[in-house]
Amino acid sequence: MSDLVRIGLVQMRCEVEPARNLAAALAAIEETAAAGAHIVVLPELFRSRYFCQSEDHAAFDLAEPVPGPTTEALAAVARKCGVVVVGSLFERRAPGLYHNTACVLDADGTLLGLYRTMHIPDDPLYYEKFYFTPGDLGFRSFETRFGRIGVLVCWDQWFPEAARLTALAGAQILVYPTAIGWHEAEREEFGVGQHAAWQTSQCAHAIANGVFVCAANRIGREQTVDFWGASFVCDPFGQVLERASHDRVEIVMADLDLRRIEQVRRHWPFLRDRRIDAYAGVVQRFGDGPA
Amino acid sequence: MSDLVRIGLVQMRCEVEPARNLAAALAAIEETAAAGAHIVVLPELFRSRYFCQSEDHAAFDLAEPVPGPTTEALAAVARKCGVVVVGSLFERRAPGLYHNTACVLDADGTLLGLYRTMHIPDDPLYYEKFYFTPGDLGFRSFETRFGRIGVLVCWDQWFPEAARLTALAGAQILVYPTAIGWHEAEREEFGVGQHAAWQTSQCAHAIANGVFVCAANRIGREQTVDFWGASFVCDPFGQVLERASHDRVEIVMADLDLRRIEQVRRHWPFLRDRRIDAYAGVVQRFGDGPA
Repeated sequence: MSDLVRIGLVQMRCEVEPARNLAAALAAIEETAAAGAHIVVLPELFRSRYFCQSEDHAAFDLAEPVPGPTTEALAAVARKCGVVVVGSLFERRAPGLYHNTACVLDADGTLLGLYRTMHIPDDPLYYEKFYFTPGDLGFRSFETRFGRIGVLVCWDQWFPEAARLTALAGAQILVYPTAIGWHEAEREEFGVGQHAAWQTSQCAHAIANGVFVCAANRIGREQTVDFWGASFVCDPFGQVLERASHDRVEIVMADLDLRRIEQVRRHWPFLRDRRIDAYAGVVQRFGDGPA
Repeated sequence: MSDLVRIGLVQMRCEVEPARNLAAALAAIEETAAAGAHIVVLPELFRSRYFCQSEDHAAFDLAEPVPGPTTEALAAVARKCGVVVVGSLFERRAPGLYHNTACVLDADGTLLGLYRTMHIPDDPLYYEKFYFTPGDLGFRSFETRFGRIGVLVCWDQWFPEAARLTALAGAQILVYPTAIGWHEAEREEFGVGQHAAWQTSQCAHAIANGVFVCAANRIGREQTVDFWGASFVCDPFGQVLERASHDRVEIVMADLDLRRIEQVRRHWPFLRDRRIDAYAGVVQRFGDGPA
């Protein structure tokens, strides 16, 4: 396994018709692979519009089994192109039991495993708690042909615990399939700050854990939300290597030297110095930490 | 208690003679209080040069008991000026037992308590593990006349667990007395990135926890280290409100509206959504997180 990995993030616009989005994603994976990528990351729930803007029982019809049609299509293209693919889908696990799930396909098409989103938001126009049961698979990493990948999704971006646990599980690259945007009513006053905080938060995960971090977001207006794109890759120093626009369909390509992880961690040996004897309070909701 | 708090960070140069540094710190506190500050934060180990650049048994002579001469002098000026003071000192707890300790003096001069630095670095020119026994008081917050303050020190800046636990202990403002700088040999290649990562990491603590964050650093060259100043205050959105230069003695003053904490947390309800059922692995050194 080489230490040099080229990663491509697919920044796409999602249309109403799922089949069209899947076709666009498959084409983007082929294009990204042809440009030399070893790993391709799709945005969160790329097969549909962001249906969580309202609570609509009919939207559960968008869910599908895993393995199922989308993972099979992604597996086929992964195998065909010899690339690792990280996908995201609305999983129907059982009648009445749904998850916001990411899947990791190895470069031979093997479904290496799933990550079911652990942190579920609920905010005006992001009614995810209505749709998604919180994940029960914990924080994981996946040994792919081109590196050990940890997958987290969207709202997880704001929780340092998620990044830490995924890094402790051995991840070299954290990838965040994402669907985040500006509310029309908030953008003027808070838009710049919201986007900055989103990027800062993820770059800090890279620094704290000495890992690469990638976020793949969608673009485009859907009802009153403008998805802000700006998909990016940062290194274990928290420095942004590549970043997309706010409003264009793009592939973000970055070359990662995985040896940089050990280099940075040797100079910033945070893993050496964690006070694991004093962190028990992290599992508390609030209140005093351990004495 | 008002929700409007003015905080002042003392960015100072530390000379060889401890008495001179203490006098400068006391004068700076008076000056900052006269400018309307309610809380004044001193840099880490401000009473001396940064002695950890070498392992020198004679340097333990700089340590002092707590309470002791420095806390008494800080208490007197706190009482005189009616300001809360966060100080930092080399604590001699018993023969052969020393800590890197912060103290919180309330505005009436009461010593509210101590924080003994939990995370101790050890790096070329930062030989702190030689001098400081890791703290045994855990992560705490202190209810002062002007707000509930959590104190962390320098190397703690890089550990999201420290910020999280201190916020869960009720802190509204995290303050980091600091002594960080560039190695002469690294500055040209890595200096900008090191400073950026330092600020990013702390702004991320503000975002993740919905708290104000302040870092008070020293300036000046001591042997081959250039302490980089850049003391700053950021809001719970992670936005830098005020920031000092890299190389001048300065007071950084910022007006904090503590109501902003609830406002930001209502819109970014991360504390609501933490998966405390799934964080047990945080107390592990490495390996898989919980299943």
